[in-house]
Amino acid sequence: MKRISKDRKIYSFSPESPAAASVPQGQPFTVECHDCFTGTMSADDLYSADKWKTVNPATGPIEIEGARSGELLLVDILDISVPSEGLMITVPGMGALGHRFDHAETKLVDIAGDVARITEKVTAPVIPMVGVIGTSPSEGSIPCGTPGPHGANMDCKLITRGARVHLPVNVDGAMFACGDVHAVMADGESCVSGVEVASEITMKVVSVPRDGWPCPCVETEDSVWIMHSAKTLDECERGCLDAGARLLVEKGGLSENDAACALSAVGDLAICQVVDPLKTMRVRLPKRTLRELGIMLPGA
Amino acid sequence: MKRISKDRKIYSFSPESPAAASVPQGQPFTVECHDCFTGTMSADDLYSADKWKTVNPATGPIEIEGARSGELLLVDILDISVPSEGLMITVPGMGALGHRFDHAETKLVDIAGDVARITEKVTAPVIPMVGVIGTSPSEGSIPCGTPGPHGANMDCKLITRGARVHLPVNVDGAMFACGDVHAVMADGESCVSGVEVASEITMKVVSVPRDGWPCPCVETEDSVWIMHSAKTLDECERGCLDAGARLLVEKGGLSENDAACALSAVGDLAICQVVDPLKTMRVRLPKRTLRELGIMLPGA
Repeated sequence: MKRISKDRKIYSFSPESPAAASVPQGQPFTVECHDCFTGTMSADDLYSADKWKTVNPATGPIEIEGARSGELLLVDILDISVPSEGLMITVPGMGALGHRFDHAETKLVDIAGDVARITEKVTAPVIPMVGVIGTSPSEGSIPCGTPGPHGANMDCKLITRGARVHLPVNVDGAMFACGDVHAVMADGESCVSGVEVASEITMKVVSVPRDGWPCPCVETEDSVWIMHSAKTLDECERGCLDAGARLLVEKGGLSENDAACALSAVGDLAICQVVDPLKTMRVRLPKRTLRELGIMLPGA
Repeated sequence: MKRISKDRKIYSFSPESPAAASVPQGQPFTVECHDCFTGTMSADDLYSADKWKTVNPATGPIEIEGARSGELLLVDILDISVPSEGLMITVPGMGALGHRFDHAETKLVDIAGDVARITEKVTAPVIPMVGVIGTSPSEGSIPCGTPGPHGANMDCKLITRGARVHLPVNVDGAMFACGDVHAVMADGESCVSGVEVASEITMKVVSVPRDGWPCPCVETEDSVWIMHSAKTLDECERGCLDAGARLLVEKGGLSENDAACALSAVGDLAICQVVDPLKTMRVRLPKRTLRELGIMLPGA
């Protein structure tokens, strides 16, 4: 199986970045990923501003052979490896709890099988997820740490084994990249880090006609969630709901009033993260609802 | 079993309201509840501003015998009845989607067993929940439609059969009231209504020493969720996380840094509703985490 080395990394998504590798559609491949600190932090280091330039690397960009600008990329997460330890950091002023402590700490988190030890007494189930996953914007350069319409640092814990991620193809080849795996993370990522690990992600990717489909999305067994990133949660809420309503109206044939009722009944709003340069929320469209409305999933 | 008639209703929580009934602690009783329109709306009516004065009634206030100001009220939701139809409304300018349509509609929702028919084609599983549930503030008068530290219109879909709600006792007798049942509602309640139904709620209530416990909370099988209401989601986020961190530090003995890591790993942030005068969010504290830290649940 093709492997892409973590030595081939980017810190921004940009059409200027040369391809690190190229993969055919539909064939599984493995992407080695640094942790979010590019491996520069140990438990003895404290995070400081000078580390900012090596934060949130993504491995790639990977050219998806035959993907054409305007299409939709479907990324199936087949597996995510989890090492035996990870790091968490707390830094005053960072994250959504950084006003509560006066010194920085770096915590080595022991991971034994399905359990991560967060503090001496607090443990958590290991459910590895991909923090940064995205494609090149059509122009410009966007730091990997900033989420947006092209994906990137959405920190959505549903992007785990078995999930399918929908991303835009803004340039031929898509120029896909990913990284920033967390062995554990709660919706919010409130302290600014999950359990940050180096990892290998095995996936396969195809591109399909986009046909007005919203993105970025994450597709789980029972739902499609549309994600939206913005400066405030209130703006995220609006972006998610507008995208959900548009889909139900344009593809499901509902009136605007009926789409609003449907979302109010089945369209859960949820939090991805509240700590990145833009925050990210998601809204649920149950597959049951899409089926009822005759809305075909991309790639189905 | 004692029944409290829906004729005994309030539109504001206030210590000035005389008790509609009084119930002993620990004994199940049934509260009849109007729908959120006090039964004044039919499928032929359109919602208009003049209906505002009959929106969000709560049945009560119910004096909980022996509850003393400063204690914590634990409300166990034993059952919620669901009729065979409910109402949803869409009104331009109201809710989180009211900018998308130009006319009001009222929708009669047919409920057959476990399924509600939201639109001609869209159905949803029936999971009845209590929208308004609260206690009197220590002074002043707060419309039932406005959520706050005393509970009220939190519209949290986890407040369903089997849940336990933690509320403050701000005045002797607690002066508890509830209503506004939804047969179906997604996190967010984005169109401004769930499937609004008249209902009967069977519950039992005890009061216990509060001992610094946060509230309002909803306790489910595996978690305690602390709720916080505020003008914006970003303020809700802060309120939830601060309350969660305080609990882990004060009762669990964690350092502030460790509490932040624990929340980032297991403390999911979630949305209750985004359409009331204040919005409401919740943060999860898994019972596993509380057990690990030796934090006893109130009433345990």
